[in-house]
Amino acid sequence: MKIGFFGVGNMGGPMAANLAAAGHDVTAFDPVPALREAAEESGVHTTDTPADALAGAEVVISMLPSAAAVTGLYLGDDGILPRIQPDALIIDCSTIDAATSRRVAEAAAESGLAMIDAPVSGGVGGARAGTLTFICGGSEDAVERARPILDAMGKNVFRAGPPGAGQVAKICNNMLLAVHMIGTAEALQMGADHGLDPKVLSEIMRVSSGGNWSLEVYNPWPGVMPNVPASNNYDGGFGVNLMNKDLGLALEAALATRSATPMGALARSLYASHANQGYGNKDFSSILALFKRKDD
Amino acid sequence: MKIGFFGVGNMGGPMAANLAAAGHDVTAFDPVPALREAAEESGVHTTDTPADALAGAEVVISMLPSAAAVTGLYLGDDGILPRIQPDALIIDCSTIDAATSRRVAEAAAESGLAMIDAPVSGGVGGARAGTLTFICGGSEDAVERARPILDAMGKNVFRAGPPGAGQVAKICNNMLLAVHMIGTAEALQMGADHGLDPKVLSEIMRVSSGGNWSLEVYNPWPGVMPNVPASNNYDGGFGVNLMNKDLGLALEAALATRSATPMGALARSLYASHANQGYGNKDFSSILALFKRKDD
Amino acid sequence: MKIGFFGVGNMGGPMAANLAAAGHDVTAFDPVPALREAAEESGVHTTDTPADALAGAEVVISMLPSAAAVTGLYLGDDGILPRIQPDALIIDCSTIDAATSRRVAEAAAESGLAMIDAPVSGGVGGARAGTLTFICGGSEDAVERARPILDAMGKNVFRAGPPGAGQVAKICNNMLLAVHMIGTAEALQMGADHGLDPKVLSEIMRVSSGGNWSLEVYNPWPGVMPNVPASNNYDGGFGVNLMNKDLGLALEAALATRSATPMGALARSLYASHANQGYGNKDFSSILALFKRKDD
Amino acid sequence: MKIGFFGVGNMGGPMAANLAAAGHDVTAFDPVPALREAAEESGVHTTDTPADALAGAEVVISMLPSAAAVTGLYLGDDGILPRIQPDALIIDCSTIDAATSRRVAEAAAESGLAMIDAPVSGGVGGARAGTLTFICGGSEDAVERARPILDAMGKNVFRAGPPGAGQVAKICNNMLLAVHMIGTAEALQMGADHGLDPKVLSEIMRVSSGGNWSLEVYNPWPGVMPNVPASNNYDGGFGVNLMNKDLGLALEAALATRSATPMGALARSLYASHANQGYGNKDFSSILALFKRKDD
Repeated sequence: MKIGFFGVGNMGGPMAANLAAAGHDVTAFDPVPALREAAEESGVHTTDTPADALAGAEVVISMLPSAAAVTGLYLGDDGILPRIQPDALIIDCSTIDAATSRRVAEAAAESGLAMIDAPVSGGVGGARAGTLTFICGGSEDAVERARPILDAMGKNVFRAGPPGAGQVAKICNNMLLAVHMIGTAEALQMGADHGLDPKVLSEIMRVSSGGNWSLEVYNPWPGVMPNVPASNNYDGGFGVNLMNKDLGLALEAALATRSATPMGALARSLYASHANQGYGNKDFSSILALFKRKDD
Repeated sequence: MKIGFFGVGNMGGPMAANLAAAGHDVTAFDPVPALREAAEESGVHTTDTPADALAGAEVVISMLPSAAAVTGLYLGDDGILPRIQPDALIIDCSTIDAATSRRVAEAAAESGLAMIDAPVSGGVGGARAGTLTFICGGSEDAVERARPILDAMGKNVFRAGPPGAGQVAKICNNMLLAVHMIGTAEALQMGADHGLDPKVLSEIMRVSSGGNWSLEVYNPWPGVMPNVPASNNYDGGFGVNLMNKDLGLALEAALATRSATPMGALARSLYASHANQGYGNKDFSSILALFKRKDD
Repeated sequence: MKIGFFGVGNMGGPMAANLAAAGHDVTAFDPVPALREAAEESGVHTTDTPADALAGAEVVISMLPSAAAVTGLYLGDDGILPRIQPDALIIDCSTIDAATSRRVAEAAAESGLAMIDAPVSGGVGGARAGTLTFICGGSEDAVERARPILDAMGKNVFRAGPPGAGQVAKICNNMLLAVHMIGTAEALQMGADHGLDPKVLSEIMRVSSGGNWSLEVYNPWPGVMPNVPASNNYDGGFGVNLMNKDLGLALEAALATRSATPMGALARSLYASHANQGYGNKDFSSILALFKRKDD
Repeated sequence: MKIGFFGVGNMGGPMAANLAAAGHDVTAFDPVPALREAAEESGVHTTDTPADALAGAEVVISMLPSAAAVTGLYLGDDGILPRIQPDALIIDCSTIDAATSRRVAEAAAESGLAMIDAPVSGGVGGARAGTLTFICGGSEDAVERARPILDAMGKNVFRAGPPGAGQVAKICNNMLLAVHMIGTAEALQMGADHGLDPKVLSEIMRVSSGGNWSLEVYNPWPGVMPNVPASNNYDGGFGVNLMNKDLGLALEAALATRSATPMGALARSLYASHANQGYGNKDFSSILALFKRKDD
């Protein structure tokens, strides 16, 4: 298929490359020349004019860093929405607030265009390996149309509900992730403070009712698991600043509906405090540092 | 083997029965006549004199509701410790604070007796079905000696470390359980407040990085899973009052080592508030009520 | 002075009346006819055309319920900013987010107009009695120009800093208010749970290091103080929904600067949960209900 | 009067000295020779035998660091309770858990002796200056008998209720103190993050509804107030470790009555985390560090 792709940074770059590798005809726009060059090398056509990426595009995909960027791309003064061809499908993979997602999808619908929000989980590694998970919001029909395209970039595609629901489901998930990661870190530290071996304690809790994804594949205690950030000085992985961005979106969503999220709100403040201590670019499992003893 | 069993209530009763069914010669003591009668009916010998339960016992097991009861049984004025035969093994299955466990185990050691703490998870259902998990603290040798006995009452036996470590591991686990249950409940409610279907959201998070035991086998939203307390008016299961007891033990353990447990401490207060609203005897997944809207 | 006043609801109505009573020539606009009628009866001229309220106005005052309303009034398609006379001073008394305040003030500055944000504390009672506190953001010069006008409606005028600073200071204050109110409520309940008389305990803490405004003038325990909402079934006063609005603004401000506010964030969730239990229209000191025992 | 005084450390030393300076005949016991020497130099008689301090004593005062020390002194194998003369009054000024206070007071009552718990606030400075506050638990009669003695060491004497109530009231107060100190620190940091001057913001909140003891006399922001620990590198004052001890007592009290104290519990964990970062011996207002930015 002919695909226009907007935003080929850390995430969008390998995603577009995987689409090209699967045989699609991908033309990408990005304002940064170096990113366009990298995309060219991976088999993606590029252009420095947004309109050119739209020429003949049956599918439009965007992967941008903020709600303002998404709004600007589609609805701005030179927004692309009016120039997208009538029967095209729009897939926005950016992680942004649900209200903006809904607003842009409504504007698309008014122009007769189907649009879904499809934020991803899986990180840069998943983008490269083509193993991302897409959490979609949009009509059943639109999500089904998107599925073969998404399959070329990932391994799981979920439909959470109508437009915006993908964003809500993703931040609910990431809020819960932050909560059980912190809970796991403090449980392991308390056990260690009482003389237990964190590896043994991890194994017991993993197979008991304390079990969760952090214990299963992302243990925060250095040395318990190989190949996780905790065993690599907390480098790589999912950064504290990115987690803070998602927790900020979660809190805004909670404010919008007056939802009570005491655990999520506490997680947000603990991660903000952690970032302020200088850990912003470390993996989010480094939250363990908040519980360790400097005087020991 | 010849086993003396102390405490045949909701948990101890079926545990002793399973030992008898496995061919062991079990004599149980309990101060409550009705509990002794029920035990008799399940194939367990009983006695109203603690000393009689010790006669010839190669293994002594206790399942009592509080640290005071455990201390009284072993170390009280008429404590049984001096009367246990020299080569016997002591297994205390009560969930109590680690400090008391260590103290009693030390007194046993001074009398030349091996003792382990082996608190359980799995509840009354697990006790009846013989599928309990035992989380043990004690020497490797003592835990190995206990294993065949424990296998007759459960399906998993873990050794967490030296005496007291079983208690620490169990409350670490249950603290983490409380944290991810509340986190799950608030994430589901926030999703629902935004119009998502809790069943769909549960499934997405279950297989994503938010995944945890609550989503896997104990979903707190009514109707998402059959055969869980949430789908049965929150009856049965693991009561809020029992969770509060365990969270109290967790907080005491945190105080003892000056461990910081912000998520666990918040969970304790939320469950205390929940109990005060009248939910003390409901299943602990009923914490969802704290996030629902009465005015909707 | 000639004053154009926009928004004569619960707060703006008595504020405009006090200005008129002080001898100012006040013309008010409000889209709601009943509010205009009430304003007329209090000595304020009214108009159903915004432009008419601006005719000759040396001072423009607005008291509106949301950032959207403020943005619409000044910057909307028919916004009044272009029609305000060049040397006029703009005073926005609405409680909104600081970012919006700064944005509108910048637009005003570009039009050559001085503008301050001057959110109030003191509630409807203070508005009627003319005893409000104004917390201002704007240049020193602009705040000094506003002072005699504000003095006619209140008894305290503070300058917190440049444009937007009034909003920030107000929500910092209200966040801290929520924190010590909840802290006071839980301390009193814990004391009562241990058999202490809340009145005696209140008095001890009031004059000790626990002392705070809640204990001083707004005790949350029924009967400790006369003439406070707690002694009047939590009616009147500052509603839970309004506190939630301010805590929402505080959280948004914290997100904007990545500030860690664990106590404020917890307060937000506890008040959200409290509102969801049906207390939205009760006074905010009713948060005590979260700690009381229904089963006692 | 003839007074036996047990424990002349940092607090007890100057307290005993003030009693002697007021003309009382004070004999002190302390196991540490250096402390006895210091007491001698301040006009207090000393002895290395507890019994000698009791000879003829009409009043017995203790100021000890832990519940175990208090229990040992009065109820231990060589406990002094049986040797105190029948009509003497016992005043325990130690800060310990209420349950122990009640237990020792009951034992005293069984021996026919009146006893009060009278924990203090005011710190070492208040002990030296004779300006302590005593928060008493005991019968009205016993507290009245104690009052002239306490007046020689402090300036405020409160009766909180029956035995143990002094301890409860003190930890309620200190829990609330921790809550508003943290709340104040995070509000000031959030204001500063938005460009406000912490001194100006402090003054606005101090006289508004955010007002509390921390803002009034103990501002945590360096330089806002002279003569507070924050302006002296957080040296002196009330140490983080001592605050953690009191918060631990508060949490234990909450567990004993199943009271929900979300703010107090969070304060405990934040102070524990803060101590673990190496601030244990700094003043408790140094909690501001948890909110500052290392990367700025």
